[in-house]
Amino acid sequence: MTKKWVYLFSEGNAKMKDLLGGKGANLAEMSNAGLPVPPGFTITAEACNVYNELGLKFPEGLWEQTLKALKVVEKQSGKKFGDPKNPLLVSVRSGARVSMPGMMDTVLNLGLNRETLEGLAKLTGNPRFAMDAYRRFIQMFGKIVMGASGEAFEHVMDVYKAKTEGGQDTDLTTEMLEEIANEFKAIIKKETRKDFPEDPYDQLRMAIAAVFDSWMTRRAVDYRNFHKIPHNWGTAVNVVTMVFGNMGFDSGTGVAFTRNPATGEKGIFGEYLLNAQGEDVVAGIRTPHPIAMMAEELPEAYKQFIEIAQKLEAHYKDMQDMEFTIEKGKLYMLQTRTGKRTGAAAVKVAVDMVKEGLIDQATAVMRVAPEQLDQLLHPTVDPNAKIKVLAKGLPASPGAATGKLVFDPDEAEKLAKAGEKVILMRVETAPEDFHGMVAAQGIVTARGGMTSHAAVVARGMGKCCVAGCGDLNIDYGAGIVTVNNEVLKEGDWITLNGSSGEVIKGQVPTVEPALSDDFQTLMTWADEFRTIGVRTNADTPHDAQVGRDFGAAGIGLCRTEHMFFVGNRIDAVREMIVASTLEERKAALAKIEPLQQGDFEGIFRVMDGYPVIIRTLDPPLHEFLPKEPAEVADLAKKMGISTETLQDKINTLSEANPMLGFRGCRLGIRYPEITEMQARAIFKATVAVKKEGVDVHPKVMIPLVAHVNELKLQEAVVRKAAQDVQEETGVSFEYQVGTMIELPRAALTANEIAEVAEFFSFGTNDLTQTTFGLSRDDAGRFLPFYVEKKILKDDPFQVLDQEGVGQLVKIGTDRGRETRPDLEVGICGEHGGEPNSVKFCHRAGLNYVSCSPFRVPIARLAAAQAALEEKGY
Amino acid sequence: MTKKWVYLFSEGNAKMKDLLGGKGANLAEMSNAGLPVPPGFTITAEACNVYNELGLKFPEGLWEQTLKALKVVEKQSGKKFGDPKNPLLVSVRSGARVSMPGMMDTVLNLGLNRETLEGLAKLTGNPRFAMDAYRRFIQMFGKIVMGASGEAFEHVMDVYKAKTEGGQDTDLTTEMLEEIANEFKAIIKKETRKDFPEDPYDQLRMAIAAVFDSWMTRRAVDYRNFHKIPHNWGTAVNVVTMVFGNMGFDSGTGVAFTRNPATGEKGIFGEYLLNAQGEDVVAGIRTPHPIAMMAEELPEAYKQFIEIAQKLEAHYKDMQDMEFTIEKGKLYMLQTRTGKRTGAAAVKVAVDMVKEGLIDQATAVMRVAPEQLDQLLHPTVDPNAKIKVLAKGLPASPGAATGKLVFDPDEAEKLAKAGEKVILMRVETAPEDFHGMVAAQGIVTARGGMTSHAAVVARGMGKCCVAGCGDLNIDYGAGIVTVNNEVLKEGDWITLNGSSGEVIKGQVPTVEPALSDDFQTLMTWADEFRTIGVRTNADTPHDAQVGRDFGAAGIGLCRTEHMFFVGNRIDAVREMIVASTLEERKAALAKIEPLQQGDFEGIFRVMDGYPVIIRTLDPPLHEFLPKEPAEVADLAKKMGISTETLQDKINTLSEANPMLGFRGCRLGIRYPEITEMQARAIFKATVAVKKEGVDVHPKVMIPLVAHVNELKLQEAVVRKAAQDVQEETGVSFEYQVGTMIELPRAALTANEIAEVAEFFSFGTNDLTQTTFGLSRDDAGRFLPFYVEKKILKDDPFQVLDQEGVGQLVKIGTDRGRETRPDLEVGICGEHGGEPNSVKFCHRAGLNYVSCSPFRVPIARLAAAQAALEEKGY
Repeated sequence: MTKKWVYLFSEGNAKMKDLLGGKGANLAEMSNAGLPVPPGFTITAEACNVYNELGLKFPEGLWEQTLKALKVVEKQSGKKFGDPKNPLLVSVRSGARVSMPGMMDTVLNLGLNRETLEGLAKLTGNPRFAMDAYRRFIQMFGKIVMGASGEAFEHVMDVYKAKTEGGQDTDLTTEMLEEIANEFKAIIKKETRKDFPEDPYDQLRMAIAAVFDSWMTRRAVDYRNFHKIPHNWGTAVNVVTMVFGNMGFDSGTGVAFTRNPATGEKGIFGEYLLNAQGEDVVAGIRTPHPIAMMAEELPEAYKQFIEIAQKLEAHYKDMQDMEFTIEKGKLYMLQTRTGKRTGAAAVKVAVDMVKEGLIDQATAVMRVAPEQLDQLLHPTVDPNAKIKVLAKGLPASPGAATGKLVFDPDEAEKLAKAGEKVILMRVETAPEDFHGMVAAQGIVTARGGMTSHAAVVARGMGKCCVAGCGDLNIDYGAGIVTVNNEVLKEGDWITLNGSSGEVIKGQVPTVEPALSDDFQTLMTWADEFRTIGVRTNADTPHDAQVGRDFGAAGIGLCRTEHMFFVGNRIDAVREMIVASTLEERKAALAKIEPLQQGDFEGIFRVMDGYPVIIRTLDPPLHEFLPKEPAEVADLAKKMGISTETLQDKINTLSEANPMLGFRGCRLGIRYPEITEMQARAIFKATVAVKKEGVDVHPKVMIPLVAHVNELKLQEAVVRKAAQDVQEETGVSFEYQVGTMIELPRAALTANEIAEVAEFFSFGTNDLTQTTFGLSRDDAGRFLPFYVEKKILKDDPFQVLDQEGVGQLVKIGTDRGRETRPDLEVGICGEHGGEPNSVKFCHRAGLNYVSCSPFRVPIARLAAAQAALEEKGY
Repeated sequence: MTKKWVYLFSEGNAKMKDLLGGKGANLAEMSNAGLPVPPGFTITAEACNVYNELGLKFPEGLWEQTLKALKVVEKQSGKKFGDPKNPLLVSVRSGARVSMPGMMDTVLNLGLNRETLEGLAKLTGNPRFAMDAYRRFIQMFGKIVMGASGEAFEHVMDVYKAKTEGGQDTDLTTEMLEEIANEFKAIIKKETRKDFPEDPYDQLRMAIAAVFDSWMTRRAVDYRNFHKIPHNWGTAVNVVTMVFGNMGFDSGTGVAFTRNPATGEKGIFGEYLLNAQGEDVVAGIRTPHPIAMMAEELPEAYKQFIEIAQKLEAHYKDMQDMEFTIEKGKLYMLQTRTGKRTGAAAVKVAVDMVKEGLIDQATAVMRVAPEQLDQLLHPTVDPNAKIKVLAKGLPASPGAATGKLVFDPDEAEKLAKAGEKVILMRVETAPEDFHGMVAAQGIVTARGGMTSHAAVVARGMGKCCVAGCGDLNIDYGAGIVTVNNEVLKEGDWITLNGSSGEVIKGQVPTVEPALSDDFQTLMTWADEFRTIGVRTNADTPHDAQVGRDFGAAGIGLCRTEHMFFVGNRIDAVREMIVASTLEERKAALAKIEPLQQGDFEGIFRVMDGYPVIIRTLDPPLHEFLPKEPAEVADLAKKMGISTETLQDKINTLSEANPMLGFRGCRLGIRYPEITEMQARAIFKATVAVKKEGVDVHPKVMIPLVAHVNELKLQEAVVRKAAQDVQEETGVSFEYQVGTMIELPRAALTANEIAEVAEFFSFGTNDLTQTTFGLSRDDAGRFLPFYVEKKILKDDPFQVLDQEGVGQLVKIGTDRGRETRPDLEVGICGEHGGEPNSVKFCHRAGLNYVSCSPFRVPIARLAAAQAALEEKGY
């Protein structure tokens, strides 16, 4: 006995995806659920593999089984394959285990030839439709199955269209279409040296072989290699009876959802058209009607459809997106699949379905894509608006903003006070632009990366920002910007999409976010399932509060230096940098210490009961000094030193590769007094709030450690400061000293580093930069190209590169815990709020993730999903 | 029975280092070889461990055994411990398995007290000497053994010295010394609340305990942690009879070598002084005599010493450095150790000893430190010259050079033509300075690292260079340089030491190198032992020839872009960079192709029969464009474009972190036409020389690969070019495509990369930069500090960091070979010529190392030693 290669829909079910492919399994499932699916069958993916093994030959018995199945389909449909009077037409399409571009598309209307064409014309009462279907079939079959190039076909079409008055496809007459069909056949003969097969059985055999062949095309193989899909999965072939919605006014076609995909509201939602084909609905040639009208026009079919829709939703336990056709009053379900929805709808549907008893809470948590929450947390560009994208920069801080273009921070402040909405555009921002950034709706810069001043400050404020948009040629003097041949002047409206990095011309409506009760409910469920913690990156009491409000349980990264930019503190910082003796430096540090202490107190109060990880000074010192000559002169005057002296200092501090330069713990090792001051400020704040009754958990984190000896030296400074403060105040307190793991060497020698560090936090921004040898600020000229060309699957600064950087995260975690089994390990790079990366962190055994306040809900949800996925959800 | 804690010299030997420490084992060995060693004994390192375990108590039996041994020593020496008439005095010193700073130094003259002092005075006939010895003993014992602070002692000394006319130690009278001794005792009493012990046995017991205690001092523990020396090794204690060379004119002391340590010539070589102590020879207060004079002055002792010297050399089979003392006509050997020697001497001694049948070839190869060969290959600063170091930069290219200071390349060329020796000093060098660099004896720059233009070009020419000397404040306009408060002007003499990075004031004599026959002999032996290959990094036919002459078997790295700087080629390169369309770029590339082809042909001819690895374009494009406004204007004029356009282009290409920017394969992926041009040039050169009969092995290497997909794309371009050239010329050839592994990600995913790469070459310069997150060009402000403070053991750019970067080399090699077992793996970073790193490469299983031509002999020797070390040598 030969193997079973062919399954009628009645023989399959949804669980047989491996054998029948996703499409085949679903059609079988619907069919067996008693739904009116057009009769059909599926040839197994196994047959595809054997076909390839045999050197492109059908396995034994395949064709016989196909013919047998076809007989059953003929009986079910009441039509006959190749019958000129009542022809059975079928669609043939590929269907692998997972949806896979690069393989054969659908061939429709297979079974048409000169004779059956007549039958179709009569049945539809529309000879032109029938002839057009024939012409399309030849073209499709010729190209997809027989391998003729498409150009010759297009050329013929152009020639005939030119003969008509309107010049469109629709202007071609039935006669013309017939001539075209003949010319198409001639093209096929000439190009492939084969006749177009008039015999429907030949057509079918060839189409099946073509589907099999498409599994091994270069495009498909490349796709599988990239996505690591095994080549031995093979593809199934689905052969399904064609049904027609354009057989008169008792026919029609439509698409519908079981709930509103925009809001999530329960109830059928969709469109349909009488006497039309599916493509008419999609193409928008005729305006479809709301599906409710079907209740009057085709009441019986409507009633049946509603029942089916409910049944499908109950069956799949999720909102369904369905396609249907009514042929002469009879309803056929052509497809049902999980419906795509907005973030708001996703949350509502998930929570509603739990209330309806349809799904459990875990399933609800799995149902919402964490990325979608972004829509709920920030304003978004109205998806219905027509937009003109002027240029694209880096999506530095999500959300959308629209306003009048302003180049000057003072002007921005002035206009904002006058009630105007403004967008601040700068080549790059500096600390002195801060007031303008506060005043603006959004910020856009021509230079700088995801970690530039503009980006960091904007994210902290939850304000939309596009950074490093290199196409902007800004002329401050003239008050204009030239961008890809468009010239905008000050006062012109522009819109920013900080989630996509788009800079958009004009004023575009935005949609404001609103956090529903459903959202809160879902997040509560998520928290019950997740096993890793979620903290926030926050540099100020305000940011810390936002993080708390979004559910962060502590601070994973507080960047002390960001506070340097507030008010006129920068003056003392600059004094410290320019100091040429230890005494001068200590004097400047003494001015900074109480300011830092105050900030820390505020943060500790907000984070009462939760850990607060404070990182010591990290950026290269020159980042705090001005760059423009005029600013340098100003500052020199303010500091009472000569411009030359200051410029000399700035020059001395300038670096070829600041990212790899004099920064991180290297600063604290060279100038221990800086670390000492910061540690003192942290511990004095600890004592101050402890006296107020705050439950305070300070953790001091040393950045950019490459060798354990660096950490040892800094640890000693911190512990000395802790002891000093305890002695001075007579108040004792607990604290920890840990380190960022953000250099490959630190991860590789984590066992040694853990001898000193009480906790690790992976700084995956820097770790990605060093592991890839890739500067985030400079990647603009090739990284987008890399992502576009799929050289890299994702931008590794957005999605953690699990294959490379992820190895170091695992190595670092494992080796650190070899030395110190209870080592607390977290992540505080941008990846801490990216769903896939959060899931990776869960699997890698991290204790928590930390991200910017507005990403906290996303991380909470992703963490819950990771825990559920582990349990097999 | 208690354990044996004490070994007389007669009971030990050289193999008992673990138990007796290095010093004790050697003294025993000499003693048992029948040499006249002052009697003594050693307390075991084991006793030290038990002492610590017992909570700082002597183990049972230790003191009894010590007293017993002391009795034997009394008998051997004919003196008696504590005897006022004929006192036995001893030295007590620590001696661990390896020499270890941070532990207790020697205590001399132990056994002295008020009574024995008299005996010493009589025996030496020098009461002042005896009293001074007593004073010194109290001071030394008080400080080292009893823990008094040294300051109070120094203060007393100062007070008494002030009372004398000369104000020196030597001006103090016997009476003064006695008063000082008494005051010292009072200080000890006051500071330690203990009396200075007058009983010699108390002195001995306390000194032994102090040695044991010194094993656990903070300094010693830190040192062991850093050097990974186990804490349970412990230290032994050596107690040795004091002998005196200043007991009259039948006494004396000296140091001597068995061969000339400067030249290696055979024959006794050294100095001695009659009626003197060892420290007199060392301190240079009296001028010592050549040892030959001893033959006349103390003929018997001389004869005995010569015999002993020969015996020792024969025994240890290496040149010995000996210390001896003659006390009243009797010769005592105080120490013998392997003598330090110059590179030239090392080579000559090793080869001579093989000829003399003393050692075998393998031992000879092990005897020469590879680093020492540098002295033979480059001029060196005369080691006898007095020098004033003005500043220190990076040792960018070894050797020494002296000449007149010149700031301008044209001036350098002019003066050199006029026969002057010049040193070219620049803030940094650019391609247009090349002629000045050729003309200069050496080059020094204020900015730029080990891979800067100046460094790379200088190394290629084998010319001395100091780079990145940040202390140089150059004022081109005034023609002066200010360096650490010294001002030098154009025309002043300066000297560079490119091996140490020193910039030296004035004209300092240098020593020219000469390659002896012995050198060639040694290298031939080395080649027989080594198992890994040695190739050279060479960018021109000339460099390739130098590499061949030094024994390189192929080229491990040919940096195509370095040829861009030759002549006026840079014009075409700049055209290519500034091109704004593909056509313009291709036109410029077409001009470069034949030039590159010519270079490759030259290199292939030199490397007939050997592989040549050519790396495709690597540096960021802006490196080829000028920086100074005047130069930009010049170039714009030359190129027929506006200065503004050119400046715009330069601005667009500028990067925040060029090391992590748009470079390496990222260029070739964005502009495949560049890779294509280079591949064509390589393959056309291959065909051309093949026709001449050259045995050519081209290997194309793609730089800075982070993901296998990058390599795939570039590989396709190279293979296409190879096929094209084979078809165009009708000549077929073999070639390989491989990659640099110079990013952590490449090492971590080497299994994937090896699916495409036919060979790997570790670019450890970049790999070190990214693994440490450390820019070589910017490390000047903290890396020297790190090395000085032992935060890092070595500069990781000079010595491969085996712990961190080395892990990636191992991971990369192992994973690469998992995929492709016969994968050829090499290294082409600067480390390829550094001995420790070469040895690491051998152990990691690499196939070859590649280094700059002048380091090839060093690498050959180091590779041989690695192979021999593996065999237990």
